[in-house]
Amino acid sequence: MDGKLRIRVWNEGRHEAVNEPPHIGEIYPDGIHGAIAAGLRPHYPEADITTAVLADEEHGLAEEVLVETDVLLWWGHMAHAEVSDAIVERVHRHVLGGMGLIVLHSGHFAKIFTKLLGTSCSLAWRNEGERELVWTVKPSHPIAEGVDNPIVIPEQEMYGELFDIPDPDDLIFISSFAGGEVFRSGVTFTRGKGRIFYFSPGDQEDPVYDHPQVQRVLANGVKWAAQPDLDRSAPEVRNAPRGWYETSAM
Amino acid sequence: MDGKLRIRVWNEGRHEAVNEPPHIGEIYPDGIHGAIAAGLRPHYPEADITTAVLADEEHGLAEEVLVETDVLLWWGHMAHAEVSDAIVERVHRHVLGGMGLIVLHSGHFAKIFTKLLGTSCSLAWRNEGERELVWTVKPSHPIAEGVDNPIVIPEQEMYGELFDIPDPDDLIFISSFAGGEVFRSGVTFTRGKGRIFYFSPGDQEDPVYDHPQVQRVLANGVKWAAQPDLDRSAPEVRNAPRGWYETSAM
Amino acid sequence: MDGKLRIRVWNEGRHEAVNEPPHIGEIYPDGIHGAIAAGLRPHYPEADITTAVLADEEHGLAEEVLVETDVLLWWGHMAHAEVSDAIVERVHRHVLGGMGLIVLHSGHFAKIFTKLLGTSCSLAWRNEGERELVWTVKPSHPIAEGVDNPIVIPEQEMYGELFDIPDPDDLIFISSFAGGEVFRSGVTFTRGKGRIFYFSPGDQEDPVYDHPQVQRVLANGVKWAAQPDLDRSAPEVRNAPRGWYETSAM
Amino acid sequence: MDGKLRIRVWNEGRHEAVNEPPHIGEIYPDGIHGAIAAGLRPHYPEADITTAVLADEEHGLAEEVLVETDVLLWWGHMAHAEVSDAIVERVHRHVLGGMGLIVLHSGHFAKIFTKLLGTSCSLAWRNEGERELVWTVKPSHPIAEGVDNPIVIPEQEMYGELFDIPDPDDLIFISSFAGGEVFRSGVTFTRGKGRIFYFSPGDQEDPVYDHPQVQRVLANGVKWAAQPDLDRSAPEVRNAPRGWYETSAM
Repeated sequence: MDGKLRIRVWNEGRHEAVNEPPHIGEIYPDGIHGAIAAGLRPHYPEADITTAVLADEEHGLAEEVLVETDVLLWWGHMAHAEVSDAIVERVHRHVLGGMGLIVLHSGHFAKIFTKLLGTSCSLAWRNEGERELVWTVKPSHPIAEGVDNPIVIPEQEMYGELFDIPDPDDLIFISSFAGGEVFRSGVTFTRGKGRIFYFSPGDQEDPVYDHPQVQRVLANGVKWAAQPDLDRSAPEVRNAPRGWYETSAM
Repeated sequence: MDGKLRIRVWNEGRHEAVNEPPHIGEIYPDGIHGAIAAGLRPHYPEADITTAVLADEEHGLAEEVLVETDVLLWWGHMAHAEVSDAIVERVHRHVLGGMGLIVLHSGHFAKIFTKLLGTSCSLAWRNEGERELVWTVKPSHPIAEGVDNPIVIPEQEMYGELFDIPDPDDLIFISSFAGGEVFRSGVTFTRGKGRIFYFSPGDQEDPVYDHPQVQRVLANGVKWAAQPDLDRSAPEVRNAPRGWYETSAM
Repeated sequence: MDGKLRIRVWNEGRHEAVNEPPHIGEIYPDGIHGAIAAGLRPHYPEADITTAVLADEEHGLAEEVLVETDVLLWWGHMAHAEVSDAIVERVHRHVLGGMGLIVLHSGHFAKIFTKLLGTSCSLAWRNEGERELVWTVKPSHPIAEGVDNPIVIPEQEMYGELFDIPDPDDLIFISSFAGGEVFRSGVTFTRGKGRIFYFSPGDQEDPVYDHPQVQRVLANGVKWAAQPDLDRSAPEVRNAPRGWYETSAM
Repeated sequence: MDGKLRIRVWNEGRHEAVNEPPHIGEIYPDGIHGAIAAGLRPHYPEADITTAVLADEEHGLAEEVLVETDVLLWWGHMAHAEVSDAIVERVHRHVLGGMGLIVLHSGHFAKIFTKLLGTSCSLAWRNEGERELVWTVKPSHPIAEGVDNPIVIPEQEMYGELFDIPDPDDLIFISSFAGGEVFRSGVTFTRGKGRIFYFSPGDQEDPVYDHPQVQRVLANGVKWAAQPDLDRSAPEVRNAPRGWYETSAM
């Protein structure tokens, strides 16, 4: 499967463009998207791993691109509101049709995420560079395979409960922070035929995407979310004649 | 709790207005909303049970009305597109804040339902008045309390899988139809602080809302969804100073 | 409902009998069961709240007692192995038949709990009297009603992940500890027609059952788990003639 | 992964031994286990697929065999009670440690299944060779990949609700029968580190295991349940010194 995978890493790219924080160019010289892609490559040496940013034409998410994308990773923060509604609809349709989606950190407020989940996706936060511990609570899940328990992240923005999401299909990771808060930091959802993974570690302030264990989680997430052999079509309403299944199946 | 409950039955009311099907006035002389409300009254003799339709000002769903509503029941079919987006946003906010919502039958395509669920909510259908059997698969759930297993509905529109919804919090009822299809006909979701129950039996063609067992299910659903003592406020993002909980709690 | 409730608080009672820890008589002069029962009484002034211990005849869990019990609370630790297998079978049958069960703290290793869950129910622990924060992650659940978020427990034994339980029906509370561990501290399960709630705070070393918020959680748990109107019978295999439901329902 | 897989098909083998039904030798000349194994081979040409029966020494489930088994399939019916409790304990330990387990049809009453699930696993049944339709309700799940929706099985024993199981992790298939009953026929559970799949079609009366779609489901189930790279160890209780994770991870 690995060789055929087509992975697209999307990043808003605004923090990098405005140099906020000022050291972002040091910790992420190729942008957050560049760092995420670089972390995936050793895990998928034969995959087609590309990146795109908000400023690209159609945000780099044209129909013909999505058709050829098995898994889309999404990082955004400052410019959620600037993402085109039409493109959000398009991504939504592809997810329902079976494209994998991995939403990262501040992507919790991305239009595509709140649209898929139906809730506010709000949370508590504090950006003081606290130690985060990421604990595995579902060791049988493919995304937990080979992952340290806990992952120790020395400095990271705090995300705390209440995280206003629907009950996830699977709760894989729970984080604690030095300040005492907890967060459901690794959760999966399915919508239509698509698989969605949200993973919270990874801020613009700290080089979290260089952490080998975080890279391992994202690589596992890609493998879990990808359905390269699936017919890409969202579920549709249909009028079913009585006994239709006797001669065919769909 | 019963005496205080404020229950609002919303119906699009279009089938009744256009006399489609022609016998709708016979089976539902007070409209579908009237029949649903009438079925609830014996179960909640002291409750405040009101009805509203699409043609009412603000669809009968003004802010001051929703503030005073514990549970909203929703029936729609022909005119989903005519429901105001602003009012859908308002209902959505109230659900996240804790208002109960019961979505009925063809309401699966209501804007408020697809917005809360994030999927297409599509399904297979056939309107030939088939026998539906509603089987209980979670007998421990409050909504199944005292309900026949199965409920036998002599004639009903067929709704069949794939029902494109997220995994429900609880799957309570599964229906089979004479033609062989199955359907997850009674499912719950939570979004924010709100509780949502979807129940599929109940078409404009057949007097299903007069069925005592269907009335029992809806009464149970109301009881389960209501949170009259809850502070009505949707979850919100907040910046949490370190150790904030040491002096207060929220 | 409250007036009719029959609540039975079961405690192994061994720590009290052997005075271990030496100060247990000071913090729990009426035993852990006495403290739990005392905490429930203001919430259910008309309920029939009784206690029982391992040393009682049939552990205080005779068939005729269980028949008259709506909710059983269970605290055990040192003497799990001394609980009679026959009585565990009896309790198990009553849970499947609809009796509510609330398992507390070190009861995670009780025979009845591992039998109902099917896993090892093992966990990590450390008894150094650390601060525990109990965070609500499902605010729509009846057991979270009116509960502080977080509950601050100044000193408590640490219970940490991996907590080897099946995926719960509902995850209501997640705790963090001063040492950085997290724990799914409030979870529900259903088995047969019965409702089960596990809540981890509450050790023999610290007077946690005197905490008003812990008392509130247990009171909510009792209300949620009780099904006083249910026919107490466990699901059974049955041979179903074709069309049996046309003349009757069960 | 496929080449390394070690798959063991266990069958009680009693129906075959006593020739009940008399035509079992015609429909399953190599036994039910032989048919299941034969159905898997085209899907896993390089796997090590073996069979075992109750009459084998240690039921063919010695410790050294289980250590080398990635996925165990289980078919039993007449002789559940004759399975050694000690061997059930052993299989249980291996499942918690990560061995995949696929339980088939009348295996719902196998000791290993009820022990893992904690419920009675009872159901309704009728053996009149009715048509079963197996509908996919979670198309995003790996076990549903490439499977007809519905699968049409011309003749099969009816299994109906209430199926007394815990809420599954994933509900993949729901069946309907000509007589109107429904059944959650394809469900997954996780216990400890192990993955469990139950699939109900497949009786001793009808050659259901020769159905290409049933074979496809079982092949998918094996792939989903297998964790060949996992350290085989069940979760265990442990005393965790404060800050233990700062120097190591486990």
